Amino acid sequence: MGFQQYRSPSTGQPVRAVLFDTFGTVVDWRTGVAREVAAFATAHARTFDAEAFADDWRALYQPAMNAIRSGRRSFTKLDTLHRENLDQALRHHGIDPDRVSMEALKELNKSWHRLPPWPDSVDGLARIRRHYVVGPLSNGNTSLLVDMARNAGLPWDVVIGSDMTRTYKPLPEAYLRTAAFLDLDPGEVMLAAAHNSDLRAARESGLATAFVVRPTEHGPGQVADLVPEGGWDLVASSITELADRLGA
Amino acid sequence: MGFQQYRSPSTGQPVRAVLFDTFGTVVDWRTGVAREVAAFATAHARTFDAEAFADDWRALYQPAMNAIRSGRRSFTKLDTLHRENLDQALRHHGIDPDRVSMEALKELNKSWHRLPPWPDSVDGLARIRRHYVVGPLSNGNTSLLVDMARNAGLPWDVVIGSDMTRTYKPLPEAYLRTAAFLDLDPGEVMLAAAHNSDLRAARESGLATAFVVRPTEHGPGQVADLVPEGGWDLVASSITELADRLGA
Repeated sequence: MGFQQYRSPSTGQPVRAVLFDTFGTVVDWRTGVAREVAAFATAHARTFDAEAFADDWRALYQPAMNAIRSGRRSFTKLDTLHRENLDQALRHHGIDPDRVSMEALKELNKSWHRLPPWPDSVDGLARIRRHYVVGPLSNGNTSLLVDMARNAGLPWDVVIGSDMTRTYKPLPEAYLRTAAFLDLDPGEVMLAAAHNSDLRAARESGLATAFVVRPTEHGPGQVADLVPEGGWDLVASSITELADRLGA
Repeated sequence: MGFQQYRSPSTGQPVRAVLFDTFGTVVDWRTGVAREVAAFATAHARTFDAEAFADDWRALYQPAMNAIRSGRRSFTKLDTLHRENLDQALRHHGIDPDRVSMEALKELNKSWHRLPPWPDSVDGLARIRRHYVVGPLSNGNTSLLVDMARNAGLPWDVVIGSDMTRTYKPLPEAYLRTAAFLDLDPGEVMLAAAHNSDLRAARESGLATAFVVRPTEHGPGQVADLVPEGGWDLVASSITELADRLGA
């Protein structure tokens, strides 16, 4: 009733779906992983810097996906990549993963399924959802994203995991196949992300773009993604502010 | 806190996800389609029996999918099959679809995206969702199911359309690929359906089963699926009653 869909100046189309990068944009992976790493360390009578461990584990994320993006390795879901990377991170911190129970490693790996939302995420998504289809557009696999949504209370309309598109951002197919599942033109889909590189790739595939600034995703000393590095359609400091910009 | 997942006697496993057939089980396709058909007839200065038209349109559903199940035709999404079948149904009722605007036909085809829920569906799903992952396990495509959920207020955790599994029930892959996306064993997934044939196929693939009786899906003269025809794990006359049976 009188609500006007936001029209992207760059695509010239009204936006029908607002899809979100998740790790860093909707949820605070560093705090969430570090919390579970600290509990793991205590349980195994170890002491190490849980934030540094989370950073090390996360640093292996892009290289692991690169093997798949380049075609050197067939599509493998993120849970499996996280699990392999966990072994490496543990060794780096002086722990032999072969001396830890499979069950404990599996549980720790699931910390990525239980990440806490940023304070504005749930409210912002609920508002945007009143007028737009909302969902993740993430490199996470479906079961990870569903667990995350249930734990954090993220009110998605749809969860299209990377195991459904069978590719990883920033390859164009990640964006294009997601739009196709929604029966939308790329220009009717907006990607909201805290990472300029993700938005750059989305724009190249014809999507509308929104930059959500998350200046502490990487902790207090963050140096990247503090400002928009492209003429993104919208810029906001939170998802509730993005809801304002979208008129939702 | 103290909640015990329902354990299926047939699979021996606790159920983690309850997935629902949609057309007939969660939504009343006949009433919904007939309502839009009646409006279409009025707009085009025609009179015909809207319920009979809905039945005729629906009768073309299984034959259209059979071409794909048998491999005679490559995977084609349900929106496209519905649209082809609409032309046939119109001709059967004396209307030349070529003399109707593409826009009007597209809108009428979208009546399948706007089906009303049965009175118990939204409450029942919301209750079950507190303790189980809930989603459709339908031959509908993703965009159809997402529109349906938004229109009817169906509180799904996840929407895995047939265009994601790229096959149609009752082929085993429809059930097995859906469980795999959720990272669950087939025995941790329950199919709830108003159709004995669907439950038979789900059980053959190792899923837990619940029969939800919908005695007026096909109108007042319904003759099929009035009683359970297998030893299904649970039998209920509504989704709220199913929630009771699941302890949710």
